[in-house]
Amino acid sequence: MSELNRTHNPLARSWVASANVAGTDFPIQNLPFAVFKPKDSDQDMRGGVAIGDQVLDLKALAASGCLADTGLAQKALEAAAQPCLNTFMAMGPQAWQALRHALFDLLEQSTSPALQARVQVCLVSQSLVEYGLPARIGDYTDFYTSIYHATNVGKLFRPDNPLMPNYRWLPIGYHGRASSVLVSGHDFHRPAGQILPPGQTEPVFSACKRLDWELELGVFIGKGNALGHAISLDAAEDHVFGICLLNDWSARDIQAWEYQPLGPFLAKNFATTISPWVVTMEALAPYRTAMERPDHKQDDVAYLKSEHNSQQGALDIQLRIGLRSESMRAAKTDTHWVCQTSYRHAYWTLAQMVAHHTVSGCNLQAGDLLGTGTLSGPTLDQAGALLELTEGGKVPLTLPDGQQRTFLQDGDDVTMQGWCEKAGAARIGFGECRATVLPALFQK
Amino acid sequence: MSELNRTHNPLARSWVASANVAGTDFPIQNLPFAVFKPKDSDQDMRGGVAIGDQVLDLKALAASGCLADTGLAQKALEAAAQPCLNTFMAMGPQAWQALRHALFDLLEQSTSPALQARVQVCLVSQSLVEYGLPARIGDYTDFYTSIYHATNVGKLFRPDNPLMPNYRWLPIGYHGRASSVLVSGHDFHRPAGQILPPGQTEPVFSACKRLDWELELGVFIGKGNALGHAISLDAAEDHVFGICLLNDWSARDIQAWEYQPLGPFLAKNFATTISPWVVTMEALAPYRTAMERPDHKQDDVAYLKSEHNSQQGALDIQLRIGLRSESMRAAKTDTHWVCQTSYRHAYWTLAQMVAHHTVSGCNLQAGDLLGTGTLSGPTLDQAGALLELTEGGKVPLTLPDGQQRTFLQDGDDVTMQGWCEKAGAARIGFGECRATVLPALFQK
Repeated sequence: MSELNRTHNPLARSWVASANVAGTDFPIQNLPFAVFKPKDSDQDMRGGVAIGDQVLDLKALAASGCLADTGLAQKALEAAAQPCLNTFMAMGPQAWQALRHALFDLLEQSTSPALQARVQVCLVSQSLVEYGLPARIGDYTDFYTSIYHATNVGKLFRPDNPLMPNYRWLPIGYHGRASSVLVSGHDFHRPAGQILPPGQTEPVFSACKRLDWELELGVFIGKGNALGHAISLDAAEDHVFGICLLNDWSARDIQAWEYQPLGPFLAKNFATTISPWVVTMEALAPYRTAMERPDHKQDDVAYLKSEHNSQQGALDIQLRIGLRSESMRAAKTDTHWVCQTSYRHAYWTLAQMVAHHTVSGCNLQAGDLLGTGTLSGPTLDQAGALLELTEGGKVPLTLPDGQQRTFLQDGDDVTMQGWCEKAGAARIGFGECRATVLPALFQK
Repeated sequence: MSELNRTHNPLARSWVASANVAGTDFPIQNLPFAVFKPKDSDQDMRGGVAIGDQVLDLKALAASGCLADTGLAQKALEAAAQPCLNTFMAMGPQAWQALRHALFDLLEQSTSPALQARVQVCLVSQSLVEYGLPARIGDYTDFYTSIYHATNVGKLFRPDNPLMPNYRWLPIGYHGRASSVLVSGHDFHRPAGQILPPGQTEPVFSACKRLDWELELGVFIGKGNALGHAISLDAAEDHVFGICLLNDWSARDIQAWEYQPLGPFLAKNFATTISPWVVTMEALAPYRTAMERPDHKQDDVAYLKSEHNSQQGALDIQLRIGLRSESMRAAKTDTHWVCQTSYRHAYWTLAQMVAHHTVSGCNLQAGDLLGTGTLSGPTLDQAGALLELTEGGKVPLTLPDGQQRTFLQDGDDVTMQGWCEKAGAARIGFGECRATVLPALFQK
């Protein structure tokens, strides 16, 4: 479990000038990981770390020998230089910390000019790179940890029974589709499927008419566990490598018709978008906070209860989501933000997700992805899905170009952002998670 | 789509004598694929093909040069010799057929003695090997294609509403857990989780008390599809590499408490067991049959309807499942078979599973695994789960040792078998899919 240390000092500065600009997502206190390559090149992907508006190329850095005498940090660097971060993720918290601290020291402003020069040649402008998925995702699991989202959606799908009796006892989750997880910037086609037109009893085959987003965070698993051996709540965070932004695109009309009795399937499996940058648990340590735990049952279940989790298990990560229509983009109008919330409102923490997932004996593996579920907060302007914001498609939003939206139209470009800020700590950010809805490809 | 050819000739014989023994699962007309290595060795896994009681080591065969001049067959052999079959699976039906036919010719009794001698040294007794998973499974999806199972289970979970209105319109499916798919012979620990004791309103944490099996088939995807591009019903079988046995272990008490509204999670993610041998679609061609289609709606949905699928889309694969308690094993009593059924009773075909899975645009990848769902037939002795056989745990089964079972006890060993037989065709089999239930490991 990460404690505060020199990498959290809000006064620390980097010799990379863009890392010191107020409002940057990537000051020296952040140092998130991604996988990238030079844009449009046929080079291999490799690991990178964000600093200001630059990416530190870890493959180049490993070859440079700058960390050659550091033991664990150099081993971790070599693993993080690979085309996906699974091996690095599997090394565990000591290795993650060793590399993060070594990179902090290389990038900090007091680093010798000679060493700066050796690191400088490993920097690439973020504007010149393209990103890959941070890991080969073995399994993707999506949770449902916002009680506000569960209640809002429950009211629409089951007016007489919005919140199931199990909700306050366990973090509801379900297995998602790993193959269609995309990194930010990869557009996707509107899905098609069977939908039940209002008032009808027989479905029709159609392009989705109620395409929605879901504002979530993604949790990358680091070290896994052996089959049969559960991870305890207090050990859970040692198995978490870091957090990214996640948009769990959802076809509400397909979902309503298909989801009983085995849960969402086609409604979710066509695309899930994540941010390229994974912010480490250590970087997030200043933003730990107590669980809000409204009307909770959690303390009645021993494997989901600990003092540390109650007092420090939540994270105050600010999140927002919005869209730009085609006409807004043509007019160079900025994204219209329609929801802002925080992860601190979640009913279940990420440690509880990990402990619950494995209590059956299920094995997690390095690079597995857990989604938090839509992170709606207590008020309507904190609702993380259009379904909630438009009250089931009844109350449209009005965009700056005068268009109205209940659900997404072809050409809509959706962006999520996330950041942490508070007095006495450096602001850190997650970059963005963005994609555009392309028309359905299906043949009628 | 596979048509009958020389490899289906029921009169064909092999120079491997055990392949000609009546009742073998692995005559020359079968030639299923697995991944194996010599038992307890530290050698790498490699592809193999079953012939009688032997495994043909494809890595050794590739090195032997026996197929050196065959072009596509040699390329396919090199891919199939690897530690997992994903690359071979991705090559598609022409490559699968080229290799299968080349192996048939090598193993057929008229092969020259000189060639036989070169192949002979590539054979290993099945009793001397251990198996791996046939593929690196990217995603595992489980369907629900038996209307008898859906109705039987629906009656127990929802007496007033056993079969959902969507059931007859689409093949219900959900994403499963890929990391805990095990190959036959790997035992697993009883899961733990929250269960709601009968008559209570608050759950307790406990080892599962209602541990069940599910008799299924597993479908390995060969060539995948690009995201956004659905696979049509008539193209679907070209994307299927082959079929194995699959036991989808299920914790019924955990399932009952957790499954609403997002479907089964911990109730299924602790273990799924598959047979090592994957029988190719070409080997199964003689056993194609018409869909039974009781009271169907399928013909109302264009993407799930074709003449070929209706007339030839089902497969008559015989299946049985049974158990041996610890005391039965001590007394050397054989497995007590409690269910025998056929895949031909399924309401939806495997081509319909593939077409439906991708109609949203979801991408399948080589090595993905689809489960058919529990393949219960129309009568109670054809029910593929204990939940059904014991009418929800009310009517126990009596074992040959006098013990009774509603659900599985620690130490119970469960075996599935599958085979095809009919007049005018060679009998072919799937080997077996077996595992023993170990005690739960959780700390109270």
